[in-house]
Amino acid sequence: MTHSVQLLGISNAIVDVLAHIEDDFLDRIGAIPGSMTLIDRERAAEIYSMMGPATEMSGGSVANTIAGFANLGGSAAYIGRVRADQLGTIFNHDMRSLGIDIRLKAAADGAPTARSHVLITADGQRTMQTYLGACTELCRSDISDKTMGNPKAALIEGYVWDLPDGPALTQKAIEIAGQNGTTVALSLSDSFCVERHRASFEHAIRNGVDVVVADEDEVNALLQTETFEESLLALRDYDNLFAVTRSEKGSVIVHGDEKIVQPASPVEEIIDTTGAGDAYTAGFLFGWVNDYPLAECARLGTFCGTTVIQQVGARIEPGLMDSYRAQ
Amino acid sequence: MTHSVQLLGISNAIVDVLAHIEDDFLDRIGAIPGSMTLIDRERAAEIYSMMGPATEMSGGSVANTIAGFANLGGSAAYIGRVRADQLGTIFNHDMRSLGIDIRLKAAADGAPTARSHVLITADGQRTMQTYLGACTELCRSDISDKTMGNPKAALIEGYVWDLPDGPALTQKAIEIAGQNGTTVALSLSDSFCVERHRASFEHAIRNGVDVVVADEDEVNALLQTETFEESLLALRDYDNLFAVTRSEKGSVIVHGDEKIVQPASPVEEIIDTTGAGDAYTAGFLFGWVNDYPLAECARLGTFCGTTVIQQVGARIEPGLMDSYRAQ
Repeated sequence: MTHSVQLLGISNAIVDVLAHIEDDFLDRIGAIPGSMTLIDRERAAEIYSMMGPATEMSGGSVANTIAGFANLGGSAAYIGRVRADQLGTIFNHDMRSLGIDIRLKAAADGAPTARSHVLITADGQRTMQTYLGACTELCRSDISDKTMGNPKAALIEGYVWDLPDGPALTQKAIEIAGQNGTTVALSLSDSFCVERHRASFEHAIRNGVDVVVADEDEVNALLQTETFEESLLALRDYDNLFAVTRSEKGSVIVHGDEKIVQPASPVEEIIDTTGAGDAYTAGFLFGWVNDYPLAECARLGTFCGTTVIQQVGARIEPGLMDSYRAQ
Repeated sequence: MTHSVQLLGISNAIVDVLAHIEDDFLDRIGAIPGSMTLIDRERAAEIYSMMGPATEMSGGSVANTIAGFANLGGSAAYIGRVRADQLGTIFNHDMRSLGIDIRLKAAADGAPTARSHVLITADGQRTMQTYLGACTELCRSDISDKTMGNPKAALIEGYVWDLPDGPALTQKAIEIAGQNGTTVALSLSDSFCVERHRASFEHAIRNGVDVVVADEDEVNALLQTETFEESLLALRDYDNLFAVTRSEKGSVIVHGDEKIVQPASPVEEIIDTTGAGDAYTAGFLFGWVNDYPLAECARLGTFCGTTVIQQVGARIEPGLMDSYRAQ
């Protein structure tokens, strides 16, 4: 089958609003350090008014993966909802400028484009307070043969299950993918997200999802295990391929009886760990859609993740495949 | 006289849209490397569609100075026009979050908030393509006893003369300042701006402006001289205080027969020279409004400029006065 593009992303389309904060700021707003919390519009306005000067840039976990995948040289498309406001224009511009085919028109009305207030403490830790805005209006009618096409792979974000119509629209996406021979990959997003939607994730993984990308904590949350060793045992019961990142322990790909352990690469200086997992996913899926051997997918994923933590900014920059090939 | 705030800025309120570009990009859009060009809305849309992913942050030359001045611990107010759109909200938020008193309400309609496409080549040089948008609607009715108050000093941006009502509104600002014992400082903005408005600048400098802040090229453009040595001779004919930055040659303050030469400080690594002049102005004026001796104003200005070129980002960060005092 000829696939129109290699990878389609379905996720929350978010503009990050990044600011450095004093250590007591998180206490003052009652936020758990390092967490991602969903907030409403009033709370977003309140937190923004308390924040110092900020920098705005396109973000979103799977959107970062899709952008990185495009910068690796892959052909990509994207389904995510923004409003036709200035932040929505920024988000779509940044994706389109990488050659990504934006499948949904920006909404003329409704909630404003989503933004995530990314609060960075002196130690570099990031705490996110996210107002989903226009994302919440993504619904099953946005998912169709027309908007999905027949990509070689589709990557769906766990966070989409937080949307009112999330479970139904992801179900529809998985069905359409199944009809087109599209590999379905699911990113588990974060362990709190897994806790919120464990039963739905389990159902999707057993029914149509082919590949699960996650970090160690998310896998443990999904499988309700205490240790990654227990998770490895529990994964024997799944047909899916699991690509699992483990920070300084590298990554592990588990597929049935096959297990590929990829050690972490040496890192000179960690600048910012944000986006490491999303970059790993971009590299892993770039290998996957190009039919690289699994060990090579793991190596490329790790290379991407390792690069991103040594730079400012969460997205893979152009030219990374050249550096990878030149190794 | 008791002054309500120490420093009021009057300038173009601009959000910067920063992107890294390939070397041939400037050729393709016909831009002069390192220049600032004013563009209309259609051209702005065209250039934006050609640009890669960008980062947005509040900018504007004198707005950067006012933000830096506030971060040094000064009390500040600001007159600049944005629309009540998302970029305008960002601009006003970033200023207000530093304690700056925003004197104009964001406009409910009219042109959108200004943005400057800042195109950064691999060597770090910045070329700006600026769409003035809402700034062009700043007019003399925005300048009043109410909006100006009686600051100790008012800093006006040369670029304001590019606005349709610029010459009239600056004239009014200078008059109100004169009635309140407010020191008027004029930033010459850039040498092309000086070429565009030399006669108006000359008139303002002879009639109400007390302090001129500029770099060497701008002073030479104003005085129509070839060398800075010629400019120094020509400046004997002015009553104004001139605070002039000269990059690696440091800075010179000239006031009548008084001449204070401040050598540049050693710099380990230049990260980004953007904002060096604006930061110098913030430091110089912070000293000025606090009645520091002129030599101390020069030292603080140079300290601020030197700091900013060794960091990413054009604005002075909080805590700089602590570093200065700890020297």
